[in-house]
Amino acid sequence: MPKQNTYKPRRERIYDWMARENIAMVMLEDTEGRRDSNVRWLSGQPGNALLFLSVERKSLLVPWDINLAKIYADADHILAYADFDRMPVKACRKAADFFKLPSDSKIELPPVTSYPRFLKFIEAFGGFDLLCRDEGVLPELEKLRSVKDDAEINLYRRAAAITDDLIDALEKLLRQGKIRTETDAAVFIDTESRKRGCEGTGFETLAAGPSRSFAIHAFPAYSGESFGGKGLSILDFGLACSGYTTDVTLTVARDLSKAQEKLLALVEKAYKLALSGLKPGTSAADVAAAVDKAFAKAGKAMPHALGHGIGLDPHEGPAMRNRDDNHWVLEPGMVIAVEPGLYDPLLGGCRLENDVLITENGVEMLTHSRIIRL
Amino acid sequence: MPKQNTYKPRRERIYDWMARENIAMVMLEDTEGRRDSNVRWLSGQPGNALLFLSVERKSLLVPWDINLAKIYADADHILAYADFDRMPVKACRKAADFFKLPSDSKIELPPVTSYPRFLKFIEAFGGFDLLCRDEGVLPELEKLRSVKDDAEINLYRRAAAITDDLIDALEKLLRQGKIRTETDAAVFIDTESRKRGCEGTGFETLAAGPSRSFAIHAFPAYSGESFGGKGLSILDFGLACSGYTTDVTLTVARDLSKAQEKLLALVEKAYKLALSGLKPGTSAADVAAAVDKAFAKAGKAMPHALGHGIGLDPHEGPAMRNRDDNHWVLEPGMVIAVEPGLYDPLLGGCRLENDVLITENGVEMLTHSRIIRL
Repeated sequence: MPKQNTYKPRRERIYDWMARENIAMVMLEDTEGRRDSNVRWLSGQPGNALLFLSVERKSLLVPWDINLAKIYADADHILAYADFDRMPVKACRKAADFFKLPSDSKIELPPVTSYPRFLKFIEAFGGFDLLCRDEGVLPELEKLRSVKDDAEINLYRRAAAITDDLIDALEKLLRQGKIRTETDAAVFIDTESRKRGCEGTGFETLAAGPSRSFAIHAFPAYSGESFGGKGLSILDFGLACSGYTTDVTLTVARDLSKAQEKLLALVEKAYKLALSGLKPGTSAADVAAAVDKAFAKAGKAMPHALGHGIGLDPHEGPAMRNRDDNHWVLEPGMVIAVEPGLYDPLLGGCRLENDVLITENGVEMLTHSRIIRL
Repeated sequence: MPKQNTYKPRRERIYDWMARENIAMVMLEDTEGRRDSNVRWLSGQPGNALLFLSVERKSLLVPWDINLAKIYADADHILAYADFDRMPVKACRKAADFFKLPSDSKIELPPVTSYPRFLKFIEAFGGFDLLCRDEGVLPELEKLRSVKDDAEINLYRRAAAITDDLIDALEKLLRQGKIRTETDAAVFIDTESRKRGCEGTGFETLAAGPSRSFAIHAFPAYSGESFGGKGLSILDFGLACSGYTTDVTLTVARDLSKAQEKLLALVEKAYKLALSGLKPGTSAADVAAAVDKAFAKAGKAMPHALGHGIGLDPHEGPAMRNRDDNHWVLEPGMVIAVEPGLYDPLLGGCRLENDVLITENGVEMLTHSRIIRL
């Protein structure tokens, strides 16, 4: 993919927003403890960098590893983070000089900037108007990123096809008795993803056999315990192609009790209900509320949201949670992981999760995870 | 290990600090984007929880997954995060009520609290004295945690023995030609660690063959490229026992050019120099400065710190960097990863990293990573 055609048009949309908002410079930070994949979305640099955008429509990337930047990054200017002693306040001050910002201009800082660090920015930027707010550039980026472009959708079709291949292969190995432990299942995913050309997994693979599937996110992520034995087992994984990750969960069921069958049936019903509700113009909160209501009717409660958008992050817009502050409306081009699940300390847990693309009429199924009965 | 004996005495040391500092309540947060292993160190809960400590010597844990907490956590009171709509400000406000704090008392918030969120705390806590500062409870915890107790040191000896076993096994497989790609090497570590009873790896295993070892941290972490072929290959990994992770790097060398041999010799020399400098009472910055000076004399520069303490986090105190603001002094009981390395876009990179325990007289080598010549 030619760099120029991917990242520059994205930055142009942010420059437009900056001009409208009268903001002279935006700072984005993607470092340990302050991860922000917007840096990669806007420059191609896969992590550990600061990115400064000027309303004069120029970008300055400050990467930790200058050698990696030479391969991956697209930006008008690149300066090593080491030149600023790897200190964000210092780098930001130099960027303001580099772009020759008038000393009363507005600078938008990352909203994760801690209160103590914000005080240091204030000290270094006398005169400037420093913005540090949740409603700044990040929601704008989240909105832009929630609707995928053609190149991103193609990456998703590719990642989904490999994900489906692995699900098929895994089912075969389970039936042949060749996958018996959580480690067998997780290592199979982690290894095959790379062999098949993925960047890797998009997040830590979770494999929880009958003894541990009661947890929403098993801890540790996988262990030597049985997987696929009597009861309910959960495998939750995602494959990343050029950073874009799928997110699927399959449940493996064997010799279930009546109560376990009921749990599973409720999840399958909720899954169908959710899919039938996904179409452009629909409120994401309403879809999630319908599922919560169905569970409540059966005397159950799902301890997490119905789903979430996916992309360079395993969780991004649109939110699919049943909460008053969720104002997302579905649009064509959104890619969403739908994941109803129920968990019980005694019965274990089950979850069914697939990724869908919102189309003009409804959804296109990207992945085909399922309940595997042994 | 009886829970009571592990976590309560640790909390007592923080209560003492709170009494000295006249702080009524401390809030710690370990959630996505705001990871803080102090929650685990103080309560046993392995992540996704808030922990509130009252100067009246009582603790309140607010975990995301209440089922996991029942197994792992030790705290005086446990309330589900869902009860507070998973909102930290709301949970903190309820904790203040729960502990019946007088409305003018001091509350210490996590210093990573963002500026926008800090404003929300202010709004919810009229009258209270809210502290959000880098110099609060976290440096105190970092200091306490940097010196390991006997139980922690025993865990380290166990984790180190397994780490050494894997290094030996890996060397054998490399010599037999059974490990040929980066994926082979990384998957071997990830699988064997779990088979041998570790919680998993303490961080993402990095395997970079000759074509990618120039990067400080290879991206992606491993791929289908050759590992152990002609040139310099790097494998950086850590094994976690009950959360405590080792951190080692071995370099595999084959058919090196003169320039590559020189790079490797410089790193080996720096490694010996570093080890000889480690003993109680020594300034950590001085040890790092000596190594930087040796590299500079050879016209080279190391683009990262000499090392770092290890524990529940793969990077914790003491810092081993050559910087004026590094005031750490070595003490018996500290566990440190020492990792000199050099990287060159054309020659590739090499790094040698082992974990040592600071003793009364010098160091005890915990791990035995090395240069493997094929």
